[in-house]
Amino acid sequence: MALSQSDKIKQLVVTQQTGYSLAQAFYKDSDVYQAEIKKIFLKHWLYAGHVSQIPNIGDYFTFEFDTESVIVVRTDAGEVKAHMNVCRHRGSRICLEQSGSQKSLTCPYHAWSYNLDGELISARNMPDDFLRSESGLHKVNVALLGGFIFICLSEDPPSLAALRQDLKQTFDLFGMHSMQLAEQKSYLIPANWKLAVENYQECYHCAPSHQEFAQIHAMAKSPKVFQKAKEHFSQTNQGNPKFIELNRYFDLAEAGQEGYQYDRNPLLRNALSGSLGGNPVAPLLGSLQSYDGGASELMIGPLSYFLIYDDHMLSYRFLPVSVNECICDVSWFVNESAVKGEDYQLDQLTWLWDVTTQADKTIIMNNQKGVDSRFYQPGRLSDMESFQQSFLNWYLQIVIN
Amino acid sequence: MALSQSDKIKQLVVTQQTGYSLAQAFYKDSDVYQAEIKKIFLKHWLYAGHVSQIPNIGDYFTFEFDTESVIVVRTDAGEVKAHMNVCRHRGSRICLEQSGSQKSLTCPYHAWSYNLDGELISARNMPDDFLRSESGLHKVNVALLGGFIFICLSEDPPSLAALRQDLKQTFDLFGMHSMQLAEQKSYLIPANWKLAVENYQECYHCAPSHQEFAQIHAMAKSPKVFQKAKEHFSQTNQGNPKFIELNRYFDLAEAGQEGYQYDRNPLLRNALSGSLGGNPVAPLLGSLQSYDGGASELMIGPLSYFLIYDDHMLSYRFLPVSVNECICDVSWFVNESAVKGEDYQLDQLTWLWDVTTQADKTIIMNNQKGVDSRFYQPGRLSDMESFQQSFLNWYLQIVIN
Amino acid sequence: MALSQSDKIKQLVVTQQTGYSLAQAFYKDSDVYQAEIKKIFLKHWLYAGHVSQIPNIGDYFTFEFDTESVIVVRTDAGEVKAHMNVCRHRGSRICLEQSGSQKSLTCPYHAWSYNLDGELISARNMPDDFLRSESGLHKVNVALLGGFIFICLSEDPPSLAALRQDLKQTFDLFGMHSMQLAEQKSYLIPANWKLAVENYQECYHCAPSHQEFAQIHAMAKSPKVFQKAKEHFSQTNQGNPKFIELNRYFDLAEAGQEGYQYDRNPLLRNALSGSLGGNPVAPLLGSLQSYDGGASELMIGPLSYFLIYDDHMLSYRFLPVSVNECICDVSWFVNESAVKGEDYQLDQLTWLWDVTTQADKTIIMNNQKGVDSRFYQPGRLSDMESFQQSFLNWYLQIVIN
Repeated sequence: MALSQSDKIKQLVVTQQTGYSLAQAFYKDSDVYQAEIKKIFLKHWLYAGHVSQIPNIGDYFTFEFDTESVIVVRTDAGEVKAHMNVCRHRGSRICLEQSGSQKSLTCPYHAWSYNLDGELISARNMPDDFLRSESGLHKVNVALLGGFIFICLSEDPPSLAALRQDLKQTFDLFGMHSMQLAEQKSYLIPANWKLAVENYQECYHCAPSHQEFAQIHAMAKSPKVFQKAKEHFSQTNQGNPKFIELNRYFDLAEAGQEGYQYDRNPLLRNALSGSLGGNPVAPLLGSLQSYDGGASELMIGPLSYFLIYDDHMLSYRFLPVSVNECICDVSWFVNESAVKGEDYQLDQLTWLWDVTTQADKTIIMNNQKGVDSRFYQPGRLSDMESFQQSFLNWYLQIVIN
Repeated sequence: MALSQSDKIKQLVVTQQTGYSLAQAFYKDSDVYQAEIKKIFLKHWLYAGHVSQIPNIGDYFTFEFDTESVIVVRTDAGEVKAHMNVCRHRGSRICLEQSGSQKSLTCPYHAWSYNLDGELISARNMPDDFLRSESGLHKVNVALLGGFIFICLSEDPPSLAALRQDLKQTFDLFGMHSMQLAEQKSYLIPANWKLAVENYQECYHCAPSHQEFAQIHAMAKSPKVFQKAKEHFSQTNQGNPKFIELNRYFDLAEAGQEGYQYDRNPLLRNALSGSLGGNPVAPLLGSLQSYDGGASELMIGPLSYFLIYDDHMLSYRFLPVSVNECICDVSWFVNESAVKGEDYQLDQLTWLWDVTTQADKTIIMNNQKGVDSRFYQPGRLSDMESFQQSFLNWYLQIVIN
Repeated sequence: MALSQSDKIKQLVVTQQTGYSLAQAFYKDSDVYQAEIKKIFLKHWLYAGHVSQIPNIGDYFTFEFDTESVIVVRTDAGEVKAHMNVCRHRGSRICLEQSGSQKSLTCPYHAWSYNLDGELISARNMPDDFLRSESGLHKVNVALLGGFIFICLSEDPPSLAALRQDLKQTFDLFGMHSMQLAEQKSYLIPANWKLAVENYQECYHCAPSHQEFAQIHAMAKSPKVFQKAKEHFSQTNQGNPKFIELNRYFDLAEAGQEGYQYDRNPLLRNALSGSLGGNPVAPLLGSLQSYDGGASELMIGPLSYFLIYDDHMLSYRFLPVSVNECICDVSWFVNESAVKGEDYQLDQLTWLWDVTTQADKTIIMNNQKGVDSRFYQPGRLSDMESFQQSFLNWYLQIVIN
């Protein structure tokens, strides 16, 4: 008799060896995928966007993964709220565009109309005993973290208290509240989402696969060389709040708290920013007064990553479309006062990480192809894949429970 | 242990609440879909086309849904017959085109040849004990209703006796035998077929979604306004056979009888036809002598709909392609004596319902997207969705048995 | 309760009638398909290519079916070896191109590097206890048969001893070691692979479907006419080694031995080759001195077919992509000394079998469409489908065990 879904997953988890890549089924099995949606994507805080994307009342954007769509909107009271993009009448999507501005959220099908807080305010020709008050849009939790909008589809989200306390200084330092979105690109990758996330989590592949990146970032060097450079860089900047280290990621997060991570790493060859030749590509962020030749890695929740140069910042997020397809969304942020075409050029700003993400898309796709083979077997991880190992430890705990 | 297919469907049906849209599984589950094919599409009369499409011996067209294909052909005796488009040798499709004319039905693979009645008349190099008489094409039941060709893939089709008796006058009134097909368009909709059918069954969405339609048809008004207009219209035309009402649809059909429905509804603003400005777009149908400012709704069987203006008629049918894809076929008919380009212009004739069906395609697609969400839940139906409720009552009965 | 996979297949096999086409499930069921991959494609010798495609050290090509990819490479010792195209680190494909030349096999992801024999020779930053010797590429068995490269993914492949002995003379006769690949084309067919194989195995369809072929090949005639022509042709050439007959195909193969088949058949109308008008299209093969107006059929293993005219040779192979999609790869070979553009013209060389395979693709696709119908039922095979019947007998034995 076939195993139940949860027994199958348990068996997969208990036979998985630490220090090795995951077994094939984790990347192909539909039941595993459904468990992941339930236990990760519907439970954790996900990065949705930045407050600068919806400055005015009625401004909204949608956030989508798998079969889900969320409306993130600026309400009449000026708050940021989020609602499921599913009409309570017969289920139609309400907002069909990726972003826009509306006085109310009116379903295009039968014109049921909700206010920006998600309350049903108009529904024609309903039976007398119909209660509008019971048919508001499903609410989605929202948290603002340094101007970044996070949502959580669970009614009981992980706590952000530790994260808020530890990261407050960082948010202020780089003026995250006062950034603006300069560009965003979506990379559709024909592979399981974990292959994309794991790719982002290790720099073992940087030297062979990303020569553009490797010329700028010390992280692409061997662990010994990189650690030496990092120690020197940290010592030189001792006491500078930019150089704190926060290691609360994945299995290192406290129980009930959402995970996070922050540290700052040196660039190479006197590079000042992540760009062609390491040259600055935009005005300094926040209240920064000078370049220090470094870049900060910031992780908020399990699936959202930020890379902070002194003059611009990138966000990376990975969202599943189906068991064998995912999207990598990359956004570029600059100081809110920067003027496009004058203070920065889009092609210069986006060059390094566009070329790097294009290359990663190819790499990840060919990784999936090989993993799909009956001859694939989990392989030994290198010393440069320890962050990925932390993710895997966490993942295996999460998916089994 | 997983439920059996039929137990799963039973559980879905018994937990479904009247007055609410269907639960998600009805729109997504493959087992539900297979049950529907078996219990609806393989059991009921389906509208295939009109006799004017195959005037001469050997003329044929194919009719397709899901994995099935039927050949509808004019035989040597001048009858209309239908056969499964599956060769009895190794199963190849026989007719590969949507329509054509053939002296015999010869399989393109190994040249097994069937006469127009579906009898195998030639098969080369077969073993001596092979009996051609046992290898005729699978027969499909055919019924002619007012010139319209209906087929039924069941060996024991629902009776058409009541329908024939009640609708005879209507068929004659509009000269349905003597129409010609002016145009047909197929709209492929990425949604479960029931969402398309339900969309056609209610005019709750007409006012917000179809301004072109709403300017012509009183049906787009609120129930009160519409009922008043309809009563006035009926009284004015009392005794006129165009104004009978036949309500034998869905759960109102007698046991063993195929369902049907007919009534006549007023147009608005002195419109004479369903067109831009309500202007006539073709010569009057049949023996009609004048316009009355109305349009008739006719339903024959559960999935075939006709809309009859005084100067042209449309047929609507909805066929599943797979669990999450369906086709809406729309055909426009005019008086058989009308000459294209002289008596009617195709673009004028088809404008209203092409623009309306394009809009419906978008609506239905976005309905499916929302229904696919884990946060979708069946919503309360309005007073303007009572015909749809009848369909749902019937559907739930059918699919459980 | 649902049947187990193997019980389901057993039931299908025992209810299958000899002399009839296969039941629908054999062409649609995913479990049947997985059993086929395991019991046929992972167990038997498959034709991969010809030694002339990789003349130099480091030359490689890839061979792919379903989710599998194999690298076939010329090693430093000048041997032909094959390895699974799956990195032992995290599973990436290693060779991304269909063919090329490399000094070593280096994974594009993290630069793990294997020598041409598949041994891991370099992997950076691995833990101290990591053993490179245990992480070589998975080996694939290779056999050279008359210059043709066959691979077998099983560790215990069927014996080729009988085949080698019986076919040696044939390989020499046509100079198979000394051919060159002139052209290859891949035809992607939206149908189960068995429908494509069965199509190749019978010439019942040649007369109705392939007029170009039927004008050249006596095989397209009725069995009586063809047998007479073949007997006359054989008697005229008695004692000529070209005219041996080897019938060790499918159920006629000895236990443990891979199957094979060879015989020579007459052309029509004084045709000398398989071409427009039957005219020669390339220099004579091997050491042949003249045309004899015939063509040889050669089968090696269950899925690889060769057609040998006096002046060129074709290979046909059928590989599954998924349960309802397969690829037919056709290659054209000429004498190794022939010069393109001077001694042969590609369009003349490839015309007959390109037009024939295009037609077959359409036929097979329409066969699948009909087989997919609920009304399909296995049909009686003709006297001209006996080779296909041998395949079916063998197949049913294989798939059940």
